[in-house]
Amino acid sequence: MSKDLPSVKALTFDVFGTVVDWRSSVIRECSELGEHKGITADWAAFADKWRGGYAPAMDQVRKSELSWKSIDDLHRMVLDRLLDEFNIAGLTEEEIVHLNKAWHRLTPWPDSIEGLTRLKEKYIIATLSNGNVSLLVNMAKHSGIAWDCILSSELAKHYKPDKEVYLTAASLLDLKPEQIMMCAAHRDDLEAASALGLKTAYISRPLEFGPNSKNDETDDMPFDIIARDIMDLARKLGV
Amino acid sequence: MSKDLPSVKALTFDVFGTVVDWRSSVIRECSELGEHKGITADWAAFADKWRGGYAPAMDQVRKSELSWKSIDDLHRMVLDRLLDEFNIAGLTEEEIVHLNKAWHRLTPWPDSIEGLTRLKEKYIIATLSNGNVSLLVNMAKHSGIAWDCILSSELAKHYKPDKEVYLTAASLLDLKPEQIMMCAAHRDDLEAASALGLKTAYISRPLEFGPNSKNDETDDMPFDIIARDIMDLARKLGV
Repeated sequence: MSKDLPSVKALTFDVFGTVVDWRSSVIRECSELGEHKGITADWAAFADKWRGGYAPAMDQVRKSELSWKSIDDLHRMVLDRLLDEFNIAGLTEEEIVHLNKAWHRLTPWPDSIEGLTRLKEKYIIATLSNGNVSLLVNMAKHSGIAWDCILSSELAKHYKPDKEVYLTAASLLDLKPEQIMMCAAHRDDLEAASALGLKTAYISRPLEFGPNSKNDETDDMPFDIIARDIMDLARKLGV
Repeated sequence: MSKDLPSVKALTFDVFGTVVDWRSSVIRECSELGEHKGITADWAAFADKWRGGYAPAMDQVRKSELSWKSIDDLHRMVLDRLLDEFNIAGLTEEEIVHLNKAWHRLTPWPDSIEGLTRLKEKYIIATLSNGNVSLLVNMAKHSGIAWDCILSSELAKHYKPDKEVYLTAASLLDLKPEQIMMCAAHRDDLEAASALGLKTAYISRPLEFGPNSKNDETDDMPFDIIARDIMDLARKLGV
């Protein structure tokens, strides 16, 4: 089933969870560092709490309780708290900086590179992530994702789902909202985009939060495309 | 001769003239449109005046005589004036919009793609152009340039050589000025970058303004690298 969406010129992608598997990547980086330093901990719980601290920290920025801080800064804020909470000592500042940049080295889901490469033949493919620009650039270089353009909340100094992020993207791409399709594994992101007139594609990522989690999928999701993964999105867009 | 510049992580490129041959491209687009519409004109003079109108228009923005306008807008402002001056009538609005976007379809110099592809193996390669983001994205797609990141004066709402442009680039890449090398065929661009601590590479483009022009090369240019073209830059950076 290919969908008739002829107005769409650009696909903007959420990144954490949608394009890359943050959870496995962060667990792996933490475990490797732990092994190297002789530190044992429940790294899965650590990764989940690290990710869990991120939305409330962003919300503090969104509500202006904190001045603008990049995701690198917010990740570090949460990390410092977690190192205390998990009683992890003995890391040098350099090691902590490197660990914080684990988020620059996340691994794509198995279908991401091939799916994006296909979609790039027909569409502008861009990030539209809460990750800061340097994080997204480093991640793309690290994993070989060939984005046409790195767009980030950082350019709007607002975090998704604030409308400024989507409108800044449309303005920078010089496209009307309906010429952009927001692609994400998260309903709130797509609902915010849709309310502004962007087209929407839901990408299913049932393993984002681990094997025992559930995501927010239902049978009646009001998005233009529902895709099993990015390869499936390409198929549904007729690429 | 390879230069020891170990601090450099990212190369930021001026685009018009440095990476792409705007003059031949614009002359070709104008000639094709002219032929199609039965309009004759001195298209080389037209291209030169179009480009010539661009710096004064940017300066009006830089001096706040005009509010922020993208290069697309400035190109259109100059184009409307030139169509009058050259007594060119009979173009539809759609044709004028298409012609104005000739600047989105500029052709790279023969060494650009291969040189940039090599440099990308070792460095982050980014635009740092007065061209707006959509222009640079479209140009990269059109010509197959695989930038890691599209950086533009538009993101700073200032035009080069205003310092805000270079500092915004450094901030978005999360790099210190000395970790960035500005690469350009124009002295003023490099001098402004150098004054802020960026490294600099001069790329010689003797044909930028046509076969009978001269560029601003001298024997004593105070830049870190002087390169014959982008392939030569790659060699001099040891890539």
